[in-house]
This record gives sequence, C-alpha cells and structure tokens, in this order.
Amino acid sequence: MPENLKALNAEEISASKRLIMEAAAKLFADKGYGSVGISEVGEAAGFGKGSLYYHIRSKEDLLFDIMTAYMVELIDAAHTIEKNVKDIPARVRELSQSFMDIMFASRPEMTVCFREVHALTENRRKGVLKLHTEYQNIWLRVFSDGARQRVLRPLSKIEVKAILGMYFYSFLWIRSDGAVKVRAIAEDFATLVLRAAAINTK
Amino acid sequence: MPENLKALNAEEISASKRLIMEAAAKLFADKGYGSVGISEVGEAAGFGKGSLYYHIRSKEDLLFDIMTAYMVELIDAAHTIEKNVKDIPARVRELSQSFMDIMFASRPEMTVCFREVHALTENRRKGVLKLHTEYQNIWLRVFSDGARQRVLRPLSKIEVKAILGMYFYSFLWIRSDGAVKVRAIAEDFATLVLRAAAINTK
Repeated sequence: MPENLKALNAEEISASKRLIMEAAAKLFADKGYGSVGISEVGEAAGFGKGSLYYHIRSKEDLLFDIMTAYMVELIDAAHTIEKNVKDIPARVRELSQSFMDIMFASRPEMTVCFREVHALTENRRKGVLKLHTEYQNIWLRVFSDGARQRVLRPLSKIEVKAILGMYFYSFLWIRSDGAVKVRAIAEDFATLVLRAAAINTK
Repeated sequence: MPENLKALNAEEISASKRLIMEAAAKLFADKGYGSVGISEVGEAAGFGKGSLYYHIRSKEDLLFDIMTAYMVELIDAAHTIEKNVKDIPARVRELSQSFMDIMFASRPEMTVCFREVHALTENRRKGVLKLHTEYQNIWLRVFSDGARQRVLRPLSKIEVKAILGMYFYSFLWIRSDGAVKVRAIAEDFATLVLRAAAINTK
C-alpha cells in the first residue's frame, strides 16, 4: 500500500471520518497510540471493522490525519486573517485568537501530535514539520510586515520561534473553563507579544 | 514494593546511577519508554542485570528519576540565582542562561518527560508537577519583585506561565550547534521577556 502523504483539508473530511478521527485522538491521547487497537477505535466511534476500513486505510494513516488536520485548520484560518487584516496589531490579535480557538478544540490531537510524532515514518514526519513551517511563516510575515511599516521592531527568527513555542506549549496547561477564558488568554498572549515586539522600549 | 516518591538531588545520584539514567533517557527518547526493556538499558550502560538492580529498583523508578533529576537541577540553580542576584534584569538573564544550559544538556530527559508523563502513577505525576510549580514560583517571584521595585510592570500568572512555556517548548527546536549559540539564544529569550515585562511601553 503506498504511503498517503497528503494532509486533508476540512472539506475533504467526511462527517464519519471526523467522528473516527475524534474518537481515535481521544483514545490515543488517553492510552498512547501503541496501546490502542484499531477495533477499539471503531467501537468508540460506533463503526464495525468493515465500515471503519471504508473510511480509513490504516492506523498510521489515521495518526497522520489526526496530526495534520488541526495544523491545516490553523494554516487556513491564519491565511484568511493575513489576507483580510492589514493593521499589524489587529492581525497579531486575530492570529492569537484563532490559535487559541483551534488549540482549545484540538487538545487531544495536539497531545497525540507532540507525543507520537516519532511513530510516523520519516516522510510523514517531514510532512508534519512542513505544515509547522508553513504556519510559522505566516507569523514571520506579520512581524516582518510590522517592522517594514515601522510599527514593530524587527524580530529575529529565534524570537519568532520562541513566541510560537509559547503558543504551542499552552495546550499543556490551559484548562477547560470555557470560551470566555480562552478569549481572555488569547488577548493576554497577544498583548505580551505586541509588547515584546514594540519599538518604544529601551 | 512501596512507591518511591522522592526526587533525587545531584549529590544523591552516584556516577553509576547517572550512567544508567543517561543511557535509559536516550533509549526512552529514541524508542519510547514502552518499547525499551530493562536489560537493553543495562547493556547500553554496561551493566549486567544483577548490578543494574543494585543501582535502580524498577523501570518506573528509573523513569521517575529521569523526569525529576533535571527539574531538581533547574530548581537548585534558580534558587542560587535568586539568592545571589538582586538586580531584576540581571536575575532574569541568569535564569534564562541557567535554563538553557540545563535544557541543552537534558534534551533526552525532557523528551521523555513530555512524552511519557502519562506512564507515571498518579502520585508520581503529581510529584513531577509539584517540581514544575516550584520552578514556576521562582519566576513568579522575579516578576513580582520587579513590579514591587517598579522596574517591571506587574505580570499576570497567565503571562508568567506563557513565558515559561516559551522556555520549556524550546527543547523541541533548539539545535545542537554549540554552547555559544545556546548562550546567544538565552540572551534573546531574556531580552524578549524583559521587553514584554517593561514598564515604558504603551
């Protein structure tokens, strides 16, 4: 069976497949990828083995889809923001909100991604890393646009990677006490970032 | 066998035990904790099964020691800095350097910690989290001291957690091109933090 290396867009994921992916992500996050059998995934999602394999090709395919779907979602949302929001501080705030909204809805997926990325084949790991680079580039651009417009100081790539790490790490500690709190946290993060990148400091 | 819940200090770890812990951390990081047998650890460290069990009690004990030793090291170094460095920006810079030095020397250990923390018993997981809280408190204090002395603005706990996340996430992407680079990165991080916490921004 040839290895499927394509990350799926939201519209390419059927409702059934999404059910299976969500059930699998929760099981993988709770028990570890290696300890979960594919029939357990089918049971949790309400599919028999035959119908399960109609929607997925293999357990590794499923792992790859889980690790890439939320990244594609992040990238698509960020591209839309980049296209529509020209004001730099507003763009940073919207990127921050969009990250937190998607992160908050994808915590099992992010847990699986950070814990099991070594379980992927080399080519697929590269595929996941490529998506992370694509997302990072959108943030690099908001800062370089900001520096060019002289509304932000120029940031080094290390600084931008540090800032993104702050976002990605947050899935480990942000608790589920509702959308209001997540919005407030996104605003806190954006403020921290905009202050760190502001021009008028010593 | 009663569960050992005590995190070891550097001086409580014999040279032999340290060898075993380092070999195990590398194996666990490369292959996953679940896929590594205890005899494989012994072989990699150059110990037979009998002498191995003279130094460790069980595979889970070893995992717990790996996950806690670098945190104890971080905490001890940070306490020393806190005691000796009263100037707030200098303290932030030294905490930053100390984190990066220890992180850079403990990447297999951190990989294992973030990937396998669910493999610990509830009590031990709490032990690891308690060490993270202790370390976080030292950073909370440098910022509250800074706000009291009016050299930094007051930061919320969310902001301090965000900043620490930036540090902890860095083990995933900082490459091993030498101590000079790590020092420079530590300085970049400290500058970012001090700018984010500066008073004289809008």
